[in-house]
Amino acid sequence: MIQSSNLRANLDRFLATMEASAQIGIGRENGLRRLALSEADRDMRDLFVKWCRESGLKVSVDGIGNIFGRREGREDLPPILIGSHLDTQENGGRFDGIVGVLAGLEVLRRLNDLNITTRRPIEVVDWTNEEGARFSPPMVASGCFVGDHDLDWALNIKDDDGVSIGEALDSIGYRGAIPVGKREVDGYFELHIEQGDELDRNNREVGVVTHGYKSHGVLVEYRGETAHTGPWPMERRRNALVAGARLLTAVDDIGWEYASTSGKATAARLIASPNKPGILSDWAEAVCDVRHNDPDVADQMRVKMMNAINDAAGRTGCAARVLNTWSWGGDIFDQQMVKTVREAVGNLGYNSWDLPSQAGHDAYFLARHFPTAMIFTPCKDGITHNNNELATAAMMEPGLNVLLHAVLARADRP
Amino acid sequence: MIQSSNLRANLDRFLATMEASAQIGIGRENGLRRLALSEADRDMRDLFVKWCRESGLKVSVDGIGNIFGRREGREDLPPILIGSHLDTQENGGRFDGIVGVLAGLEVLRRLNDLNITTRRPIEVVDWTNEEGARFSPPMVASGCFVGDHDLDWALNIKDDDGVSIGEALDSIGYRGAIPVGKREVDGYFELHIEQGDELDRNNREVGVVTHGYKSHGVLVEYRGETAHTGPWPMERRRNALVAGARLLTAVDDIGWEYASTSGKATAARLIASPNKPGILSDWAEAVCDVRHNDPDVADQMRVKMMNAINDAAGRTGCAARVLNTWSWGGDIFDQQMVKTVREAVGNLGYNSWDLPSQAGHDAYFLARHFPTAMIFTPCKDGITHNNNELATAAMMEPGLNVLLHAVLARADRP
Repeated sequence: MIQSSNLRANLDRFLATMEASAQIGIGRENGLRRLALSEADRDMRDLFVKWCRESGLKVSVDGIGNIFGRREGREDLPPILIGSHLDTQENGGRFDGIVGVLAGLEVLRRLNDLNITTRRPIEVVDWTNEEGARFSPPMVASGCFVGDHDLDWALNIKDDDGVSIGEALDSIGYRGAIPVGKREVDGYFELHIEQGDELDRNNREVGVVTHGYKSHGVLVEYRGETAHTGPWPMERRRNALVAGARLLTAVDDIGWEYASTSGKATAARLIASPNKPGILSDWAEAVCDVRHNDPDVADQMRVKMMNAINDAAGRTGCAARVLNTWSWGGDIFDQQMVKTVREAVGNLGYNSWDLPSQAGHDAYFLARHFPTAMIFTPCKDGITHNNNELATAAMMEPGLNVLLHAVLARADRP
Repeated sequence: MIQSSNLRANLDRFLATMEASAQIGIGRENGLRRLALSEADRDMRDLFVKWCRESGLKVSVDGIGNIFGRREGREDLPPILIGSHLDTQENGGRFDGIVGVLAGLEVLRRLNDLNITTRRPIEVVDWTNEEGARFSPPMVASGCFVGDHDLDWALNIKDDDGVSIGEALDSIGYRGAIPVGKREVDGYFELHIEQGDELDRNNREVGVVTHGYKSHGVLVEYRGETAHTGPWPMERRRNALVAGARLLTAVDDIGWEYASTSGKATAARLIASPNKPGILSDWAEAVCDVRHNDPDVADQMRVKMMNAINDAAGRTGCAARVLNTWSWGGDIFDQQMVKTVREAVGNLGYNSWDLPSQAGHDAYFLARHFPTAMIFTPCKDGITHNNNELATAAMMEPGLNVLLHAVLARADRP
């Protein structure tokens, strides 16, 4: 095994794949709008598959469209997975998710260059619909892979036009033949842009992700009654849109209450029907979440959010129903894997920073079942989910090399 | 001229037209969903035109789809108009608007039965898109008729699918040849269900509408910035959806503040983009309004609503822009016309009630330019903009006869 501190990824080759990706699903200036299972996503998948095959990887696609590019090892052991996602938000950047998949590809290409055969197989993975921008919830396909989500349930999730994940997979030709999950994974690495500004602000080259912000999310439905916006007395109104607006306002207030300790609360989505001038809405659906670095505080925020759901119903005479809840983060990463990352940083002599992930990632689902670690690259000013998202080559290079070293160490360990 | 207190409309014939209308554009149980310029609206218009022609009326359609069925008078004087609308809300009833148009038709048919030729011509009118359920704002076509709205502006108003009023008129064949408005009207009568419960609760057979609740509405746009829902600090968030939610909450609070004096405030509509889990929205648009019987109090409520617009922007770091405002109501009706209605009630011996209109009506636009009055029929429990809206035959008959008598008196006056 060759694993000197001189070993480096081919940055130019990696950047060329990033640049090619930035041409597929162009959104606002310098940004991408490559929604999951759209035609743009299909074009990106096709290119990724082509790259994998050209690199001698064995490509397989599972029943929810996750793409695996496998490089065999010396022994028939469970593989190391390196992954992230190629889909983006409605107003997404060129880096969020994409860096992790294409860095995984570069790691395998570099091993090819050097004729290194690792002890264990290694696979690069593109997880379907990480963003949740088209199909909610996010990270749905990694959730299926580890068995936390029911596959049929996931395939039936519909976008705002009523198209299901299953139909969308069929229409772009990515409903694959292999089973979803149901196999062992030796370890999972995910390289990602930080999506915060700690590394950039503190001039650190790479982030060792120690844990995840604890996060609690909820999808709530309110039911009221239609009536005229004019004569109908306030006392008799059951306007579901107002119930949703009151919840979102209360959740935002919770965020401000905890802002001094870097807590966050998000009112992310509100839809209503009929949602028209002249008539009160009898249906609304809201998505919101709370997050905090301290799991106990996150739990307190959750209690306030759940109370706010009922308060909003009570204030408006509507009926509230919680349709879905989710919780992420905490001490989810494998300490041996984190140590492997930290050792790679040390070997390479980078200036690093331990930090939590504040965003959700596919790694959160993997971490529930398999040893998992994440590596962060800095991103300019922490801007993300925005076309101004930026990770320069200099920002990405250390993380890419740390990934290479950590994967190699994990794959070859006795 | 025959105008004894024995003169009555043909209730059965009127009810037969109501029943036929209730079969076109069926929505929820017992309700209608007959959106303006939809295929259902076209079918209803076709039937109305057929009825008009069978009744010997001269039918014309203007450039924004308003339909006029004219019965000539003895002299070439400006006509009396009787009108309302045949479109409904998303979850509309069978009576709101429809009663007024079909009552107008019945009035003309009854004059035919009795071979009465009035001094002035009389026209029954169906105004396009009164509800504003598909194209906002409401009452747009009567606003064009009186010249308060620019026709080109109105023809370019788009529904949520991007279809303009002009395109919708063409697609159902109701962009008529005659000019919009630009002619004299002797007087305008509109019969409508009350859309409140005063008549029903007080066991009154018919309402004499004295004035309109003063109402102020606003269409507001907020602009913020997309960012990740997770790591982005509260202090840097500019979530346009939260700005909209805070406005709607504040407007609802204003309604409650004035509820004891029957004031109302409505948060009617909120749309945002991207409006997805995982990303902060950088755009939102909200529609809200305030109403009060006392115009001065309504003006106070308006000041609070306008302040709330800016407060919501300030709290969220978003930019607010008021895209449209409107004001209705007050002492808009012609006292001579109202007296004519009251005299008709007296001749017929009905048990009536003076009351304001709390909802907006096409009559509000007509009243700005021509002598106008409204007549209310009771409706069960005040329920409207809801499939449970109900006006029984017994509830509609008095108003129908009052309309007949009032129109005849106006049309034949010296």
